[in-house]
This record gives sequence, structure tokens and C-alpha cells, in this order.
Amino acid sequence: MGEDRKEGLSRRKFLLGAGALAAGAAVTGGALGGVKESLAAGQPVKVTVNGVEIAGPVPARIEKGTALAPVRPLAESLGARVGWDNSSKTVTITAGTGAKVATAPAWPWPYNKLDPEKVRKLGYEAYYEGGCMYGAAKAIIGALQQEVGYPFTLIPVDMLRYGEGGTAGWGTLCGALNGSSAAITLVCGKGVYSQLVNELLGWYTQEPFPSKKHEAYSKFKNQIQNVSGSPLCHISVTEWCKVSGKKVTDPERLDRCGKLTGDVAARAVELLNAQADGKFVAAYKPSELFAGCMSCHVGKDSTLNNVQGKMNCVQCHEPHIK
Amino acid sequence: MGEDRKEGLSRRKFLLGAGALAAGAAVTGGALGGVKESLAAGQPVKVTVNGVEIAGPVPARIEKGTALAPVRPLAESLGARVGWDNSSKTVTITAGTGAKVATAPAWPWPYNKLDPEKVRKLGYEAYYEGGCMYGAAKAIIGALQQEVGYPFTLIPVDMLRYGEGGTAGWGTLCGALNGSSAAITLVCGKGVYSQLVNELLGWYTQEPFPSKKHEAYSKFKNQIQNVSGSPLCHISVTEWCKVSGKKVTDPERLDRCGKLTGDVAARAVELLNAQADGKFVAAYKPSELFAGCMSCHVGKDSTLNNVQGKMNCVQCHEPHIK
Repeated sequence: MGEDRKEGLSRRKFLLGAGALAAGAAVTGGALGGVKESLAAGQPVKVTVNGVEIAGPVPARIEKGTALAPVRPLAESLGARVGWDNSSKTVTITAGTGAKVATAPAWPWPYNKLDPEKVRKLGYEAYYEGGCMYGAAKAIIGALQQEVGYPFTLIPVDMLRYGEGGTAGWGTLCGALNGSSAAITLVCGKGVYSQLVNELLGWYTQEPFPSKKHEAYSKFKNQIQNVSGSPLCHISVTEWCKVSGKKVTDPERLDRCGKLTGDVAARAVELLNAQADGKFVAAYKPSELFAGCMSCHVGKDSTLNNVQGKMNCVQCHEPHIK
Repeated sequence: MGEDRKEGLSRRKFLLGAGALAAGAAVTGGALGGVKESLAAGQPVKVTVNGVEIAGPVPARIEKGTALAPVRPLAESLGARVGWDNSSKTVTITAGTGAKVATAPAWPWPYNKLDPEKVRKLGYEAYYEGGCMYGAAKAIIGALQQEVGYPFTLIPVDMLRYGEGGTAGWGTLCGALNGSSAAITLVCGKGVYSQLVNELLGWYTQEPFPSKKHEAYSKFKNQIQNVSGSPLCHISVTEWCKVSGKKVTDPERLDRCGKLTGDVAARAVELLNAQADGKFVAAYKPSELFAGCMSCHVGKDSTLNNVQGKMNCVQCHEPHIK
């Protein structure tokens, strides 16, 4: 073992927590790494954890090519608890998952470009596991869990199940938008995520759903499409039921929303990929009529600055200037 | 050190990652734990990680009351990487945050009852850090991070910043509801979170905001209240601006939403506490008129089953039955 094994090269990578059980077993059964064979037996050696030397009343040393170190400072500096079981004369180390030890790395987390078509299918499938918000987030974060692993493995995507049906069925924000926006924000810092989320919502209001890109695996084929003009689940689903003649709880409607979940997650990935390449350009433009509404009502530079939102006014309000 | 230090008792608890730097330093400077002084010097001793014995070509042993163990199996079974820097003759250990090592525990995560008034103030403060969705989630999850620690420390609450202004300013779902719902769902399993989230949204539509419970620390005192009748940011904020005469971007409006953020997070905690005590009872009832709309339009047992949502129809639609 020489320079090529300098910090960062490892023979095995293990999971913390329950995984550490398997890890311990694997270590017991596997070959154990000798350190520098050329060092004299018993020679003291430095041991660092994240660059900081650990020390004890008994120094770390090399014996038979193996580094030995004091258990407590080593284990505790890795976030584990150390105990002593007198009856079995055993030093008991408990990995950090049982205590206040692990934290998330600094936000935003580094993005790794994904395949939108892979994510589209994952979104469709995950919709049937946990609904639209979970489905979209699982498609993107789950793909990052598969392809990158840590730190994305820290995210319990289940915490986003509530967004189904526009949040517990209330028909507010489309859950696929809600879940995709969470995934976007996880990997984009200030000044970036809001641009991408804004673009995603704008695109959604003008896009025909569901796309025809799920035909190979979807339960229902060639479904009728609609452009809802709104990021609200209420309008998206109700209008689709109107044009399709299906009821809200029909399996065809569920399949339509499963496809939409994949479509929105895939679009989010296209935006993230463009951003990663430095090529993101906002394309969404409100209609001329709606832009007219906003010029008077929305934003600090508007005449009245008295309306909060970017949803198309004339879906619910009569236009008062023709 | 005797039986009372059996597995689970620890002198220090440290953070992984950046925290481990400080941890290492603290260990270097602090007293190091001797293990069983009565064991003969050099006597072999068992070392277990999460109950599984680690072993190596050189056995662990006690020396001068200190347990020594082979570095590689110990560190790797705790999810760290082990390397060797030949130039400085140093064993370099890198804590798990740099590699694919840590995963989230199974969902839902165990809830610990919180003080709603503490969370109300945290929500108000966090609103000014990252907006309403972040603020509400940070109030609840941040309090759990403080009071419980792991696993709540794994959640990068920043990923929920997008919900501000009803998601990137679009005026859809109130961000305080969105963030509180994520926190509720994190700690409530299937069949529970949707009841609590439904109750929270229903309560929100009938509650006067902001509450008068922030007077001790808020920037603006005794603000005018409104009941918006809707979970949508668009209606909540626009209607408040109408009754208060303030503009959307005025500091008074921001402070109103900061208070609302705390109020919604505090209500979510009241619901979670009731659930934890087995005393949660849904109290929200739609108005009689709206309940009439729903009996025909919403749900699989309704006559038409053609509308998705639980938002009060007559806020945007003319009632067609008097």
C-alpha cells in the first residue's frame, strides 16, 4: 500500500446504522488492511480524522503492518458512542444513528445530470406508490440516490406524500409541481431555484398533458390531452375530466396524473440539466391579456401592487379592460 | 467505569462531517477514557460495533486502561474511509459525509412533542430567513433538530424555500401550509398525515390572521386580521391587502405573513401533540353551502364526481342552487 492509497481510497464503503451490522460482519470475514509494512513494529504513527489528529494516553502505533489506535477518541470523533460491558469484557461501540450525530451537508447539494426519459418513467411508477408530489420528487431525488448516493440517501422522500391531489385532496398546487420544485430547490442555490421553479410552473400552464411518451408501459394508451392554463390541481384535473368525460376517481384519471407526474419531473430535469450546462434560459411568457393584468396589479413596479400571485387572472375574474 | 456505562452512555456526542473536526480537537484536548483498569495490561478484549465484533490480524487489547483496536475495521464499520499518507506516515480517516455511507431511517420518524408557543416565535423569525414555507418547516423541524437531534439533523430545510409566495410567487398553496404539511408528514405515517394536513388547511380557511400572539417581538403590532376562506396565498394575501390598505410588497404585509407562518406552524404542532397523546379529533367542517356543492361534485360517492378539490367553490364560482 503506497501513495496511491492516500486519503480517499477505500476498499469498502458501508452504510451507517443498520448497514453497519453487515459492515461489521463483512470486516470480520474479510481481509484486513495492513498499513505500511516497512515501518518498524510498534512504531508510533499519526491518526487523523477529517484532518485532525486523535491522541490518547496510549499512542497509536503499527504492529504487524496493522495500525492500532485508542478506541474512544477514534470512535467518538466519528460520531459513535463508546461503552463498556463488564460482564463480557467488551468495548461496545454504537454507530451514530442512535444519537445526535449526523447532519446534512451544506445546501445546495451538488446536482448530477439525469436522463429525463428515465425520470419520466420513474415518475409514472412512483405516482402509484405515493401520489403526485411524492412521485415527482421520488423520480428526481430517487434517481440521484441511485446514481450519486450520499447525500441524497438522507432525504426521506415520503415526507412529501401530503401533496397528493393538490395537498390532501384540496386541489391547490399540483403535487407534481410541488415535488419537482422541492427537488429543484435541493440542488439549486439562492437566485437560481426560483427561476427554474417559475419556469416549470409557467411551462405547466401551457403544456398539453399527459404527454404521449408513456405509451410503452402505461395502463391506458393515447389519452386525451388538455392545457389547463393553471398550476392548480383543481383546474388541471377538473378540466381534464370535462374534456375526457371521465370521473375524478376513474382509473383513467389516475393514469393521466401518473403520466403528468413523470412529465413534470422530466421537464424539471431538463431545466436542471440546462442549468448545469450554463444554458438555462427562461422561456415562459404570460399571455398578452394576463400580462396586462399584471402590469397594474402584480409587483412593486405595478401601478396598484395589490395582488399576490402569477396565476392567470381571467380564469376566475372577468377582465375589466378590453 | 462499571456497569453503569454499559452501551449507550457516552461522555461526548459529536457531529459528523464538519463537526468532526471540532470533535477531533476536543478529544485531543480532553481527558481520554480508560477502559477497565482491572484488566491485565495487554489483555485481549472484544470490540463490537452495533453488536458485531470487529477482528483483525492484531487483536484489540487493553493497555494502561485504554482500549486499542485495529483502525481499519473500526473506522470502516462506522462508515468512514481509511487511507495512508506515506509522506507524513499518517493514517487518514475521513468521516462518512464524503462518501456513499449514510441513509435516512425508515419513515415516519418518531415525533417528540413541542411547545407551540416556542414554534410560533421560531416560525416568525425563520420567515425572515427564507420565506413562509421554509419558515414553517424550519420552526417545526428546526425545533426537532434542537430537541431531538438525529435524524432530524439530516433534513436540509432549505430545500423548501421554493414555496414562498405560494411557490415562487405564483400565489398557489400558502407556503406556511406547505412547509407545515411537510413537517407533519415527516413524523406521521399513512392514514394519519392526511387527516392532520386536511385539518390544518380547513382550520386555516376559517382562522383570522395574523394572531395577536407575536406582539412581544414583532416589527408591527396589533395588525388588522382577515379570514381569507382559502388555503391559497393569492386570496389570503390579496384580501389582507384589501382590508389593511397595504400594498403586497409593504413591510407590514411581510410582517403579517411572518406572523401567519408562526401561527400555522404552531397550529401544526398542536395537532401533532394531540395526535401524539391519542387525542386528535378532526374539527374542521365546511360551510353548509359549500358542503352542498361537494355532495354533488366532489368524491366517489358524489352524484357527479367531476371536481377535484376541497376549496370553497363559491369564492370563484356563482352558486347555481339557492
